[in-house]
Amino acid sequence: MNKTFVKNIGLLCTPTGSRVHAGAEQGQITKIENACALIEDGKITYCGPQAEAPAGAEQGAQIVDAQGRLVTPGLIDAHTHLVFGGWRQHEIPLKLAGAGYLDILRMGGGILSTVKHTREETEDQLYAKSLGFVHEMLAMGVTACEMKSGYGLNTETELKQLRVIRRLAESSPMDVASTFLGAHAVPEEYKDDADGYVDQMIRETLPAVAEQKLAQYCDVFCETGVFDVEQSRRVLEAGKALGLKPRIHADEIDAIGGAQLAGQVGAVSAEHLIAADEDGMAALAKGGVIADLLPATSFYLDKTFAPVRRMVELGIPVVIASDFNPGSCPSLNLPFAMNLGLLRYKLTPEEVLTAVTINAACSIGMEDRLGSLETGKQGDLVIWDAPDWEMLLYRFGSNLCHTVIKAGQPLAR
Amino acid sequence: MNKTFVKNIGLLCTPTGSRVHAGAEQGQITKIENACALIEDGKITYCGPQAEAPAGAEQGAQIVDAQGRLVTPGLIDAHTHLVFGGWRQHEIPLKLAGAGYLDILRMGGGILSTVKHTREETEDQLYAKSLGFVHEMLAMGVTACEMKSGYGLNTETELKQLRVIRRLAESSPMDVASTFLGAHAVPEEYKDDADGYVDQMIRETLPAVAEQKLAQYCDVFCETGVFDVEQSRRVLEAGKALGLKPRIHADEIDAIGGAQLAGQVGAVSAEHLIAADEDGMAALAKGGVIADLLPATSFYLDKTFAPVRRMVELGIPVVIASDFNPGSCPSLNLPFAMNLGLLRYKLTPEEVLTAVTINAACSIGMEDRLGSLETGKQGDLVIWDAPDWEMLLYRFGSNLCHTVIKAGQPLAR
Repeated sequence: MNKTFVKNIGLLCTPTGSRVHAGAEQGQITKIENACALIEDGKITYCGPQAEAPAGAEQGAQIVDAQGRLVTPGLIDAHTHLVFGGWRQHEIPLKLAGAGYLDILRMGGGILSTVKHTREETEDQLYAKSLGFVHEMLAMGVTACEMKSGYGLNTETELKQLRVIRRLAESSPMDVASTFLGAHAVPEEYKDDADGYVDQMIRETLPAVAEQKLAQYCDVFCETGVFDVEQSRRVLEAGKALGLKPRIHADEIDAIGGAQLAGQVGAVSAEHLIAADEDGMAALAKGGVIADLLPATSFYLDKTFAPVRRMVELGIPVVIASDFNPGSCPSLNLPFAMNLGLLRYKLTPEEVLTAVTINAACSIGMEDRLGSLETGKQGDLVIWDAPDWEMLLYRFGSNLCHTVIKAGQPLAR
Repeated sequence: MNKTFVKNIGLLCTPTGSRVHAGAEQGQITKIENACALIEDGKITYCGPQAEAPAGAEQGAQIVDAQGRLVTPGLIDAHTHLVFGGWRQHEIPLKLAGAGYLDILRMGGGILSTVKHTREETEDQLYAKSLGFVHEMLAMGVTACEMKSGYGLNTETELKQLRVIRRLAESSPMDVASTFLGAHAVPEEYKDDADGYVDQMIRETLPAVAEQKLAQYCDVFCETGVFDVEQSRRVLEAGKALGLKPRIHADEIDAIGGAQLAGQVGAVSAEHLIAADEDGMAALAKGGVIADLLPATSFYLDKTFAPVRRMVELGIPVVIASDFNPGSCPSLNLPFAMNLGLLRYKLTPEEVLTAVTINAACSIGMEDRLGSLETGKQGDLVIWDAPDWEMLLYRFGSNLCHTVIKAGQPLAR
């Protein structure tokens, strides 16, 4: 048996349970001083006050001494576009000149340039680059994440991206949820024929993804100039029929009905929601949809921030994720997105913790295993160079991650 | 002789010369592809195209292979309050409730709580904590910085802070400029008697600082509710008479005349300048004052950003610094402040590079040694995990620093 004992935890902060925390529960965090955790064969068998640890807990165990530091569950990044070819730093001059996302798209740059590079690069090249990102995320305390395809926009390259995601899941310590996002943009081959592209995707790509079991989720970018509500509905319903759970990029730029659609199709989550209005938020609340919020994108694009306090008020469970992608958010730093959760969304530190642990786990379907520190869950925890959770949200720009323990195994730095 | 040869530099970006770069010169950067640098006894003896390297450059040298990466001068952080006791993460709930800097100050919190802890902690405790920050900064590519006192607010503790700064300068690879900022706040002992505190400082503290040669600069927080223009002038003139060059915290919250004062007393730099108006900026331009700008503070406090494009237009040389301090900017991440220089100030990547190299060197009096890569300067350079400088300003939240070379010596990570 593989046994790890984490002792001398100064403060342990965790949500509890295996379901979403909404409303007042969003801020409900259990705090235990002088705690310890016992992990056996990857699963937590004790987590609580050190004084009440089971007899013989240390016996035969690998001992990790937290030396009085803070411990939380491993962080979960529920929205990334981590597998892509090329970079887009050379759009900086365009952006300084005031060009927006859709402007750059119209110029044939933006996402279409990433599509070009993603098509050109080999699976091995994409894998090597992405693996570097995975290790950078692990070093920041992120132990599970979601990754989307969507830079292929043809069957061959979408499958290639999803195979890279599967390789990352199998070969790295990161727990990974995989999302098919063929409907991320309309490819040049289908310019002015989004319906034709949707037809092709439903006929050819989606069945191949489902058959090869390459994704658990199907996502769509429902936005002015990208896919409208009816096109988005067709994609998500087709995915559902093949066993892919729906999630949706909604209300990022305009509120065209994406949030309502999320409620109607029973989406697990609606993502972005910068422009969400009262009608849309009511639909999310009614449909039990999780709001996956991406504040670093608002930051990078210098846009407004999603109305998150209103969402909490309405009982919508809230997640904070990085949105890492080469266009609108070239940052994989989830802790920085958490800083923005405090500084811009005005979430409390406790609400932010829930947003990147149990609610994020629910958003990627891993709530039975991940998202909290309690008996029966996987032993994914982070020792932070901090005395309390507030310190993390305060010292922005510093990586306070001291040690990551994944399924009971301390990772090398 | 100590000899280091840095070869296979894919792209070398540096300003040139040993004086401030203003106006159009702010963006004037020399870019050399396929470059190399030879450093002998800490000084650069060649820096240019690899094809033109002096014969025998590699001979007897420690070889550092940049493997095609970007190289720039070491970054310089010209404004920090790095030596302090305690932390203030517990002010977060007050801030979420809407309390501002001066509100918290009035409640006896804020800076006065840091003063309390700085007075209580021993010199060794302060040194150990600060040394950790210095190493974190070095690991981000910052090889020189300024540090201010100002959390003592009595002679004993101000001298203690300055001695810590001197120890950091002597014991770490960081080049350090030291600033006396006794006039950072009015201590509780002098509540409602700022003039009395200024008298005491001029009579007792400043002469002790000068006699023990503990600082090169004298600074003052010229602001509503802190020190007014006349009090600020008295402090800076007294410092000048003792050989301490003036710099000034001006127009952070209100434009009460700090920028004008900077011009009048011949300050090296005016710092913050969020609220600077046309009159103030005209005074800076006329007085040849450097603008030390602190965008991470605007970010953290969710305030407006200093009118930096207007400053460049007026020919004011611009510096970007971190403002690291436990109250208004608990981040020592200068690269993040640089990201904000692009994203919020709308400086070009080249203007940002000048702001953290040669102009920052001028702002801390080290322009003869630091701030550019050319023959005769100190061999302080950073190898970045990036192909070009734009990448650094684009991939916010990732530390792309690969290797720091300080006076010719590669530092251990």
